[in-house]
Amino acid sequence: MLGKIALEEAFALPRFAERTKWWAGLFALDAAKHAAEINDITEQRIKYMDQYGVGYQLLSYTAPGVQDVWNKDEAEALATEVNDYIASTIKSHPDRFGALATLSMHDPKQAAGELRRVVKDYGFKGILVNDTQRAGADGDDMIFYDQPEWDVFWETVTELDVPFYLHPRNPTGTIHDKLWAPRKWLIGPPLSFAQGVSLHLLGMVTNGVFDRHPKLQIVIGHLGEHLPFDLWRINHWFEDIKKPLGLKETCKKTIREYFAQNIWITTSGHFSTPTLHYCMTEVGADRILFSIDYPFENFHDACDWFDKAELNDVDRRKIGKDNAKRLFKLGDYKDSSA
Amino acid sequence: MLGKIALEEAFALPRFAERTKWWAGLFALDAAKHAAEINDITEQRIKYMDQYGVGYQLLSYTAPGVQDVWNKDEAEALATEVNDYIASTIKSHPDRFGALATLSMHDPKQAAGELRRVVKDYGFKGILVNDTQRAGADGDDMIFYDQPEWDVFWETVTELDVPFYLHPRNPTGTIHDKLWAPRKWLIGPPLSFAQGVSLHLLGMVTNGVFDRHPKLQIVIGHLGEHLPFDLWRINHWFEDIKKPLGLKETCKKTIREYFAQNIWITTSGHFSTPTLHYCMTEVGADRILFSIDYPFENFHDACDWFDKAELNDVDRRKIGKDNAKRLFKLGDYKDSSA
Amino acid sequence: MLGKIALEEAFALPRFAERTKWWAGLFALDAAKHAAEINDITEQRIKYMDQYGVGYQLLSYTAPGVQDVWNKDEAEALATEVNDYIASTIKSHPDRFGALATLSMHDPKQAAGELRRVVKDYGFKGILVNDTQRAGADGDDMIFYDQPEWDVFWETVTELDVPFYLHPRNPTGTIHDKLWAPRKWLIGPPLSFAQGVSLHLLGMVTNGVFDRHPKLQIVIGHLGEHLPFDLWRINHWFEDIKKPLGLKETCKKTIREYFAQNIWITTSGHFSTPTLHYCMTEVGADRILFSIDYPFENFHDACDWFDKAELNDVDRRKIGKDNAKRLFKLGDYKDSSA
Amino acid sequence: MLGKIALEEAFALPRFAERTKWWAGLFALDAAKHAAEINDITEQRIKYMDQYGVGYQLLSYTAPGVQDVWNKDEAEALATEVNDYIASTIKSHPDRFGALATLSMHDPKQAAGELRRVVKDYGFKGILVNDTQRAGADGDDMIFYDQPEWDVFWETVTELDVPFYLHPRNPTGTIHDKLWAPRKWLIGPPLSFAQGVSLHLLGMVTNGVFDRHPKLQIVIGHLGEHLPFDLWRINHWFEDIKKPLGLKETCKKTIREYFAQNIWITTSGHFSTPTLHYCMTEVGADRILFSIDYPFENFHDACDWFDKAELNDVDRRKIGKDNAKRLFKLGDYKDSSA
Repeated sequence: MLGKIALEEAFALPRFAERTKWWAGLFALDAAKHAAEINDITEQRIKYMDQYGVGYQLLSYTAPGVQDVWNKDEAEALATEVNDYIASTIKSHPDRFGALATLSMHDPKQAAGELRRVVKDYGFKGILVNDTQRAGADGDDMIFYDQPEWDVFWETVTELDVPFYLHPRNPTGTIHDKLWAPRKWLIGPPLSFAQGVSLHLLGMVTNGVFDRHPKLQIVIGHLGEHLPFDLWRINHWFEDIKKPLGLKETCKKTIREYFAQNIWITTSGHFSTPTLHYCMTEVGADRILFSIDYPFENFHDACDWFDKAELNDVDRRKIGKDNAKRLFKLGDYKDSSA
Repeated sequence: MLGKIALEEAFALPRFAERTKWWAGLFALDAAKHAAEINDITEQRIKYMDQYGVGYQLLSYTAPGVQDVWNKDEAEALATEVNDYIASTIKSHPDRFGALATLSMHDPKQAAGELRRVVKDYGFKGILVNDTQRAGADGDDMIFYDQPEWDVFWETVTELDVPFYLHPRNPTGTIHDKLWAPRKWLIGPPLSFAQGVSLHLLGMVTNGVFDRHPKLQIVIGHLGEHLPFDLWRINHWFEDIKKPLGLKETCKKTIREYFAQNIWITTSGHFSTPTLHYCMTEVGADRILFSIDYPFENFHDACDWFDKAELNDVDRRKIGKDNAKRLFKLGDYKDSSA
Repeated sequence: MLGKIALEEAFALPRFAERTKWWAGLFALDAAKHAAEINDITEQRIKYMDQYGVGYQLLSYTAPGVQDVWNKDEAEALATEVNDYIASTIKSHPDRFGALATLSMHDPKQAAGELRRVVKDYGFKGILVNDTQRAGADGDDMIFYDQPEWDVFWETVTELDVPFYLHPRNPTGTIHDKLWAPRKWLIGPPLSFAQGVSLHLLGMVTNGVFDRHPKLQIVIGHLGEHLPFDLWRINHWFEDIKKPLGLKETCKKTIREYFAQNIWITTSGHFSTPTLHYCMTEVGADRILFSIDYPFENFHDACDWFDKAELNDVDRRKIGKDNAKRLFKLGDYKDSSA
Repeated sequence: MLGKIALEEAFALPRFAERTKWWAGLFALDAAKHAAEINDITEQRIKYMDQYGVGYQLLSYTAPGVQDVWNKDEAEALATEVNDYIASTIKSHPDRFGALATLSMHDPKQAAGELRRVVKDYGFKGILVNDTQRAGADGDDMIFYDQPEWDVFWETVTELDVPFYLHPRNPTGTIHDKLWAPRKWLIGPPLSFAQGVSLHLLGMVTNGVFDRHPKLQIVIGHLGEHLPFDLWRINHWFEDIKKPLGLKETCKKTIREYFAQNIWITTSGHFSTPTLHYCMTEVGADRILFSIDYPFENFHDACDWFDKAELNDVDRRKIGKDNAKRLFKLGDYKDSSA
């Protein structure tokens, strides 16, 4: 399908080139290639997009990510630098690229302010944040955004009417040492990513974030980070047991209602047709969005899969681009294939 | 369907009656009813079985569980007491009940010894252990069975040729305080159970337990604790990235091969037909087993669902009873409906 | 779900009461009840609608149907009578009922004229025709609407912008005697209905009706009369073999494109959740419409199934009512539950 | 997967070379290639088998088929000739080929006799018959095998304990002229094949063939010729309406029971993963068999699809070969990949 839109697509800051390369060595078979791809925006990336029928990408900053910077001032300065950098880099390609705001998540008000700046000044289309924010003197604390002090941030997000992409982050601190270090091969896409994001998103659900901010739109990747699989079980325990025991105080709707009204899932890094089909019945094709997860995944795997997946034509178009246009209001994107 | 077999069915020790009742109050709407049901073995339980077409149950001890006892001697004594208790209680009903061994998991050799005793002396059909073993002076340590020192235990398990049911446990210690306490409604069936068991089982996979013990048969409940949903993604990262980076040293087969050769899933607490169907394509009906999770779930919800679920007759029979007969070698069970 | 819309809902002419009763005896266990239900419009039917959350019905005339009347003049007179009757009967309930035009299909121009009359004068929402029109001196001929002489009719249908529901009819003539009489239990819903409608609809596809009338919208019941099951195989043979051999002359698009642009399916008489889910992947939830097939099916079976079916909330709403509002432009229907 | 077994694989008689070529021209893009492939048994075919991991094929005679020969004597002589020919041709390759008996279906006793001969003398593994037998002075009559006079034949089939593959045939006579000629592109795989076989098989069900011959095993191709899609609807009408009205006289079990006990489906010509998955839930992987439909379909399409289809390893092996070994008792086949 031509004109696809992809949403979880990463870039790095060129000035961190060395660190990017070192980090790539931890998970990429060809670290140099990975580093080159993540640092590039308008050359190789556009070639891939043209080759594989991707019309538009929403770009986001991943790693070494701002959520891994536990010094507040440093994190805030880095986020601003990243936003300024990507805004200037893609300015000349509004038909091919948009950006998701990078935010320090130490201080809800500061995060809200920076978000307002980049939406108003640069026309950023949404936010992408990497799970919890490292904090504390040695970086061992984890800030979750499902606590009441974050209401001020979510108010700004819904006022600006921009979606928030909750992206995974590697486990750190005690959690890393106790749970993950002795089974290190599970860190990242095989398991820890999904477990972190699922916990955070369901924390938002049960702590009432969506009840207090009913217009909030959260996007999660990897076909929903395991959650579509358990909607029946979650719903059963929430409705039949937990709500009578008190959950109803903070969480009024059903989990299926939050998935129908507040949550979107993308195909990033999960190119499985039976799983996509299962998500179509549990989540609905209207709230599924194509994505790649480039350069952690490659264009070929994602696009060749999606273009050939056994799927009706109506939903392929919606998942491939129309849902994203609607959610992110991509008026700048002229889909020449439409 | 008549003659169904159920495998994740709990009992408690009568002498802990008070504690059982207190604990039930944490998650059951009617704590007294729950306590009565979990303490009963041969009265109300058999009535339910007859009413709902369950021919046979494998019983296991859950809570307050031995994996929550961080004093080694106390844990070992408790496991022995539990095993003796259940053996004597069900002795007169070999056609309706079998038992899964309760084990202290502080010491692999001791665990192996107790297992051998109850299999040889009592004819126990397998083992059920609650995720990690609490340990350490204040119970904050977690013993995982995916480490090399547990090989001696797995050798005994495979020599005795009995399946091992890896059951969830509530999070404790730092993990509890940091991750789960601020989002307490997710503790248990909505999320923490699946995350714990998934981590432990995939730890066994990546740390080579199944490669060193290829005959080992592990059962997990709740339709696979999220894992069937991610087989594509796990496989992709294991085969394409992690193995070339070193995982191949400890983990030779594909995740789908472990699921085909070593892993079984049950329907306990997850009575969703689309999810069952999805698991049939990802895991295969030959390795799916009916279960209830009584008395945390009730007979009606489980059996009414399973008996009416839209499902071909061949697989209903296999999932409902024939797979369990084969896996647990239930020669004692005379299925009068067969 | 409240406010459901149902589309394949039958009525009969009261003056044929005796014939209706006799005919009901051929397939209904309680012929008197069936006859009473099909003759009633505004009493029992509205009670059922209120009881089962159906807000609106599109009514159509089935049997003894006009397509079974092989005398042209008689058929045309009957169609007019039926249309006048239903228009006057539902006039006082525009918020609960709309009508689908009944047409004699002997003469394309006459059919087009009568359609124009009932759409313009009465506000009918579409057409429902029973498969082929019996014709010829002894009723043994079968008129299919996939032949060129029907272009004049389809032009009017698309000009008026109303959907056409292609409903089954019992086999007659030689086909009945050779194929169906020796296996009479397969006549009707078990097999003959689907085979007739599938042949007719694919005849329209391959004979170019949709290419010449690209705005034409055809609705078929019973989750698509077997066709969703074979889209892969039909597509393979059309694209890889039949088109190169000549089919491309009359049929330019792929079968999946016709299903995405011209064809809709309803749940009438096929209350199977796995089959609905499968249709969601093959056809897409945007083109699936709830229906009952009353009084051949009852409200309870259809509505209890649909309301409880394991399905995401987004698609339940679309299939249950929103798709129908959009397709049939049901501005008159005030959904009090919305 | 290596060692696959394929079951609906055609050959022709070399002496009909001209006719085969003419006929191939009706549906094959490259008639000469098709004719060469269908006439060859041990050269090109074995190369394809080795290339695509097919260990064993069951061969059958298709076209110009014996069911199209309306002269009884001629049909019987041809069947005998075909059986002798294929027996001698594959004699030297018992590890790669088995045969399905070709039968004239004019006379049940004669058919039974010829079957007995080829099973006893040649070790044929089953029967493949092309839907109805043309008969009558001008070939316009159609013999169905669901009538009482065929009991003598089915007795022999079950006594010999060999499966019967009910294969499609092109429509002929009045049926052809009225239904199919005006929509000729639907003749064959797109529609007529499935409609013919479905009618015939359900005729056997409703006319009591399986009740009188409960051990009879019927195989149908193309993932079940539409029937898996309608099991809910067929079951509903049979159990709730038709049986009370009289069907119970000849048909005691449910349609799902016949599919569980008497019916098998193959993947021949229907290489769709979602459809295969849907069949796994409706029919069960234990009764699904890999097949190609060579040379009407090619090895690449079938094998590349099956080997890469997203499917658990347990069922891939069963569908790919183990079910066929069990059903057809393929003791001669040494699966070198096993």
